[in-house]
Amino acid sequence: MRLPPTFYPALHDRVRAGLAEAGLDALLLDDPLDVAYLTGFAHFPNERPVVALVPRDGEVLLLVPDLEREYAADQRAAARLVVYPEFPGERSPFALLADAVGGIRRIGHAASTSTGRVAAVAAAFAGAETVTCELVGRLRLRKTPEEIALHTEAARIADAMLAEGARLVAAATGADDLPTETELAAQVTRFGAAMMYAEHEDVVVVPMLTGGLVYGGPNSAQPHRLPGGDRLRRGEPFMLSLGCAVGGRFVESERTFLLGEPTAEQRRYYSVVRQAQQVGTEALRPGVRCAEANRTCLDVIRRAGLAQFLRHRQGHGIGLGFHEPPWVADGDDTVLEPGMVLSSEPGIYLPGHAGYRISDTVLVTEDGPRRLTGYPRDLADIVIGA
Amino acid sequence: MRLPPTFYPALHDRVRAGLAEAGLDALLLDDPLDVAYLTGFAHFPNERPVVALVPRDGEVLLLVPDLEREYAADQRAAARLVVYPEFPGERSPFALLADAVGGIRRIGHAASTSTGRVAAVAAAFAGAETVTCELVGRLRLRKTPEEIALHTEAARIADAMLAEGARLVAAATGADDLPTETELAAQVTRFGAAMMYAEHEDVVVVPMLTGGLVYGGPNSAQPHRLPGGDRLRRGEPFMLSLGCAVGGRFVESERTFLLGEPTAEQRRYYSVVRQAQQVGTEALRPGVRCAEANRTCLDVIRRAGLAQFLRHRQGHGIGLGFHEPPWVADGDDTVLEPGMVLSSEPGIYLPGHAGYRISDTVLVTEDGPRRLTGYPRDLADIVIGA
Repeated sequence: MRLPPTFYPALHDRVRAGLAEAGLDALLLDDPLDVAYLTGFAHFPNERPVVALVPRDGEVLLLVPDLEREYAADQRAAARLVVYPEFPGERSPFALLADAVGGIRRIGHAASTSTGRVAAVAAAFAGAETVTCELVGRLRLRKTPEEIALHTEAARIADAMLAEGARLVAAATGADDLPTETELAAQVTRFGAAMMYAEHEDVVVVPMLTGGLVYGGPNSAQPHRLPGGDRLRRGEPFMLSLGCAVGGRFVESERTFLLGEPTAEQRRYYSVVRQAQQVGTEALRPGVRCAEANRTCLDVIRRAGLAQFLRHRQGHGIGLGFHEPPWVADGDDTVLEPGMVLSSEPGIYLPGHAGYRISDTVLVTEDGPRRLTGYPRDLADIVIGA
Repeated sequence: MRLPPTFYPALHDRVRAGLAEAGLDALLLDDPLDVAYLTGFAHFPNERPVVALVPRDGEVLLLVPDLEREYAADQRAAARLVVYPEFPGERSPFALLADAVGGIRRIGHAASTSTGRVAAVAAAFAGAETVTCELVGRLRLRKTPEEIALHTEAARIADAMLAEGARLVAAATGADDLPTETELAAQVTRFGAAMMYAEHEDVVVVPMLTGGLVYGGPNSAQPHRLPGGDRLRRGEPFMLSLGCAVGGRFVESERTFLLGEPTAEQRRYYSVVRQAQQVGTEALRPGVRCAEANRTCLDVIRRAGLAQFLRHRQGHGIGLGFHEPPWVADGDDTVLEPGMVLSSEPGIYLPGHAGYRISDTVLVTEDGPRRLTGYPRDLADIVIGA
């Protein structure tokens, strides 16, 4: 699945209107996800600049190295290609871009653009003034209906990956050995990719099409650990933290499972996180500030006396980026609006025991939060092999 | 394998000497590879800032989110940790960093640091002056003997991966089906990782520990294509483009193989690229400019009448980055010096037929180039199943 071609002219018009308002002649974007958002061209970044330029008047340009030329054409990038031979090259690639467009004296760029890149652009555009402008960052906050359709399909696949992971572990509970973290991660990742290729003719390839972390018992108490060679063990919780992208739009779907008859301690920890995720997700409504939702969510854990086991915020925006603004966290006062897509993923991490986290990808609508991922999360749903 | 702990104090002293010379009070680095270079802390970057600060006087600081705290301690990061609770947080993480060090009025940063980050740092350091400073970029150009030992070990493993790939294909030539590109890529990648874990107690995990691209026939005519589900075919060339990192230091080792008795056309293309790689590698000597080596190398292909099939430069620096300066390319006038590690990888790409590329990782020494990778490259060495 891919966005319909009509998405891009409409987006370009919105950017041009923003440029006129900001008194800018053009907007230059070099973050690979901003480039994908504006043109539909997804690529694996390296040192060769790939840049989208939206002039206030005139068509959108996409600067690519010759090595990416066919790939941009294959993807039907919604822009006129400006191709430079190689990097660094005898002439700056930005000088070729400047040649392709006239009358640019005031250029906007994102705060993510490097200081060195801004200097190179200013030099190539004959000393044009450069100004930080978060216009595209703001547009990316609210997803359009076409983008939401992609997120919704990604959510269906991510939920299926969770179900497959649970099925594989359940099937192995009778065997001698449960799978290792790495084996299970590879199996569910392959399952998701195979489903995507089987059901879609046009798969937009991004660096992590389907992926996930799997960790059991004490390993899961380190929220950013990578899967290792340890096997899952009966009597311990394990976590499947999975995600995928359809048309370049991500979701995540994560559950903590309990292997065998749950202990009283495991039930308690799970039910507190379950409650925090429920309350936090309910808070994702238009008009609520991100920091306020986060506080409402994490307060459930604090009130249960488990504040010391918190390690992270409630969640983050999700879109072309797996993590992107807004941040459902202290310090982010963004007011939630319909069309925002966010993870809601409180967790607690008990050193030496395990981590407990539940994450859904949630769309903010006029009527309140809508979970795009929907794997069940009652205790009975996440106990395997009791 | 990991760098000896003595590497870091010596490096920090060199940075401090550079700061004194540049009239800077501190150097702030946020590129993940610069951070790994200065502190030994390798991590998977996300939106949470991870920053190394080298004051001209006083110990090196490493700013990390609480989520990375244990991981930085596990890796024995050569710096004092400054931990912030979460991102974005009620206070800027950079304000916590400023609290931990005094008297900083003039801060250097790399050209890779974003404009938004520089503004946030300046604000947190009470309006300190910020200045672009490529001190660490310059130091990274020349590898120390300890780093060269890591590159040398990585080269041994990358060559073993090539040999395993060739062995797997040779073993399959009698069977009905040759492997697919994706299967072969996964097999050699696993082989390299298994070798690394079997032979080293302390593996420094980086995002791509071992990896590679595999493509056969016409697919290999697109130099940046990803491996797909196509099987290798008798009578066609195929390319194994492999790499790995030991202690975070990369090498690449790439060969084009011919499956079955080579045609006259295949022999010609291969021998021109073989000659260009030989001549280009010989040019990697102290005192030669990068652009000059590149021209010498690619002129072999041009003189053979194949200029139209060139798609890229001779090569690039390789170190903590899989691609890093200097660029063995037009437009880079860096003079080669002993201790530089470079890829030498000319190639030609014939649409509808195949690509031919040979890459070695080469160390520049006082006595001339020394190939760190050494998989054989005579015609007899790269013909399989004739």
